[in-house]
Amino acid sequence: MKKSLFSLAASVCLSTVVPIAYANSGSANIPQSQISGYTYGQKSVAIAPYTLKDLESLKKTLLFTDEDVLYLRKSKEILADQTDAVLDVWYGFVASTPELVEYFKNIKTGKPDGDYLAAVRKRFSQWILDTADANYDQAWLDYQYEIGLRHTKIKKNKTDHVKSVPQVNFRYLPALTIPVTTTLKPFLAKKGASTADVEKMHAAWVKSVLLQTILWSYPYVREGQF
Amino acid sequence: MKKSLFSLAASVCLSTVVPIAYANSGSANIPQSQISGYTYGQKSVAIAPYTLKDLESLKKTLLFTDEDVLYLRKSKEILADQTDAVLDVWYGFVASTPELVEYFKNIKTGKPDGDYLAAVRKRFSQWILDTADANYDQAWLDYQYEIGLRHTKIKKNKTDHVKSVPQVNFRYLPALTIPVTTTLKPFLAKKGASTADVEKMHAAWVKSVLLQTILWSYPYVREGQF
Repeated sequence: MKKSLFSLAASVCLSTVVPIAYANSGSANIPQSQISGYTYGQKSVAIAPYTLKDLESLKKTLLFTDEDVLYLRKSKEILADQTDAVLDVWYGFVASTPELVEYFKNIKTGKPDGDYLAAVRKRFSQWILDTADANYDQAWLDYQYEIGLRHTKIKKNKTDHVKSVPQVNFRYLPALTIPVTTTLKPFLAKKGASTADVEKMHAAWVKSVLLQTILWSYPYVREGQF
Repeated sequence: MKKSLFSLAASVCLSTVVPIAYANSGSANIPQSQISGYTYGQKSVAIAPYTLKDLESLKKTLLFTDEDVLYLRKSKEILADQTDAVLDVWYGFVASTPELVEYFKNIKTGKPDGDYLAAVRKRFSQWILDTADANYDQAWLDYQYEIGLRHTKIKKNKTDHVKSVPQVNFRYLPALTIPVTTTLKPFLAKKGASTADVEKMHAAWVKSVLLQTILWSYPYVREGQF
């Protein structure tokens, strides 16, 4: 029901409010080297201010276990050829939520920036695969910090050379855990997995996305309080 | 399985590491006026720095609807006489997780402070009922801010007049959404609700707890970035 609601919103909004450029970019599974601004594992990425030990503590608190890693891996096979369809739903949700589409606004035109949306979409597609395939090592940790910075005044807009609002407000980062994982669930069920397995994949996704948004929050948090 | 794991950890840890004072305080459903430090709706509570409109935007992003409110209400009837049992599990999880029990440590003895744990437990019990029964008005919003402050250097330890570590690190607030709601689920299923209703109550709880921890995070976030 949620999905069809979003799809409807997507159809309405994509055709009216938001430039159509990102509606179907055909971006799924393009080679990582061709994704502009995708710097996972590259030298330009700073070392994260939190450690692998901090990560282990956080995983423990989130009840994030090896079983979750297993079910995330399972989800990769299922999602690999569906990333564009997933992104249509996610972008539809953003487009239909003024509080969120605001963050893609071009400050000159006051309208959503189609090129910006399209550029982010390519990395977002890769993020689905990366979340399913994450190995939680130092490079992964460093890239979480980089993603966090790109939502704040420190780095937002720079990767894509756009003139948009200066930051995504903190509160929407952890909040997006819910729409992202709720709308993902029907896609997890589309390839014949058992109901129990879909539930486990979904639960693993909820934990992983919440874990990531917590790590992304670091630059928003006052010194010494993270 | 999770629950029995925690119960086991609880039995082990409560009898060895942590003072037994809070193990069964019989605190469930005591009159609110007898809960020390419970100031919901009182004049001493400051006005929240976020508005009811901000709250609506956040609820929208979290896909938090009237249906969720309904299923939270349903959960109240189910949980009302189980709050002590729920708290045994939650406190067992805290006791078995050094990263969390740390926040209840008496800085003089270096050990968990039994009186502090017991005092918080009474408010925690009331919090279960308040979460199920929330009306999301200004008083509710103000109390979320108050709860947030009580986790930070600004107010932690003051309510209970204890000498403990000065703050709960930000990252554990949103993270606790998972253990709190995962371990709650079996209790939601104990009074004969259908599987579908248990799922809906659980989903509503996940959204509500995440919503609350986001609001609690305000004092941790840098000026103008919440």
